[in-house]
Amino acid sequence: MKLFGHPDSGHAFKVRFFMQAAGIAHDYEEIDIWSPRESRAVEFRKNAKFHEVPLLIDNGYAYIQSNAILMYLAHKLGNYGAEDSQLMARCNQWLLWEANRIGMCLPQLRSVQRFKNHGINEGARQWLLERYKHDVGVIETEFADGRSFILGSRPTIADFALSGYLFYEGEADVEVPPGVSRWLKRMSALPGWQHPYQLLKE
Amino acid sequence: MKLFGHPDSGHAFKVRFFMQAAGIAHDYEEIDIWSPRESRAVEFRKNAKFHEVPLLIDNGYAYIQSNAILMYLAHKLGNYGAEDSQLMARCNQWLLWEANRIGMCLPQLRSVQRFKNHGINEGARQWLLERYKHDVGVIETEFADGRSFILGSRPTIADFALSGYLFYEGEADVEVPPGVSRWLKRMSALPGWQHPYQLLKE
Repeated sequence: MKLFGHPDSGHAFKVRFFMQAAGIAHDYEEIDIWSPRESRAVEFRKNAKFHEVPLLIDNGYAYIQSNAILMYLAHKLGNYGAEDSQLMARCNQWLLWEANRIGMCLPQLRSVQRFKNHGINEGARQWLLERYKHDVGVIETEFADGRSFILGSRPTIADFALSGYLFYEGEADVEVPPGVSRWLKRMSALPGWQHPYQLLKE
Repeated sequence: MKLFGHPDSGHAFKVRFFMQAAGIAHDYEEIDIWSPRESRAVEFRKNAKFHEVPLLIDNGYAYIQSNAILMYLAHKLGNYGAEDSQLMARCNQWLLWEANRIGMCLPQLRSVQRFKNHGINEGARQWLLERYKHDVGVIETEFADGRSFILGSRPTIADFALSGYLFYEGEADVEVPPGVSRWLKRMSALPGWQHPYQLLKE
């Protein structure tokens, strides 16, 4: 397997962190996502449908969309949420929720703080911030019962999907409530965790 | 199986339209999503984690998140994209893309036009409109090669997910390009299609 990513992509981070934690051997190549598309590696250009990281190549097939890659890998392992169709459905619910909610607003808010030319006006920033407050509150509520991971005592791909962008701590200028903070500490204690800027550096 | 939905929910529409087209027998109950939560049917309140439609009950288990329900049903049928892991991965990519892109901005833009108290300021509306133009352009590009459905000659759950909110024609005050329009015509020619206001009325 070969994964393409970049340190600025929390979406790529989700996937590489999961692969490390699950012990999935793979090659890794950093793609300069700030460079012109035509200057990127040929293997990447040929396979990355929307020119985005992460891109995973496995047995000659290309896989895109971070959460879809997580689903594919978990299914292949039969683990991390893919043990049975009930648990997989609950994982998928969180992965779809993430794509629509915290995995939408949080990267946008981070880009306002961190990058120029992010294309987000002040009204949009306010609206995204309200969404973030709601979304992080939903995750905080999950942990009110003291469980360790989002679906119980063991991590699933839902944890990797939901936590990805929260590791760019401070960059989005948002609050992280205490239950979510403690869960992030548990996630960063899993095998192979490194900050995205280290983990995704080639 | 029992599905809970509401005519104003394009997310519920995706699921019911798919169930009709795929010939999945089910009961249907309309939930008044504009009513106070505590006044809704007990079965719905007990099972709808985020108080949202659609909710599917199957064998006593609750399934939420429209695209996760589509994945669950396709997997159960072994059809509509679940025939093999390669095709399923490509479906999942579109379902995740939809949740983050056109399935995010289009319902929001519709709610600006159609509902009061939508909580979307003018800056946010402009930002969402730019996203919509990009997103519908991505789908239009897919059909440039003349294929009938998003992944080839037969419809998959990706088609049901991507098209859902586009059937509230005119309500979001947005342009629909010609290739997308022709695909929507093909979708509405599938067995069981009705406009959301008819299909989701109990």
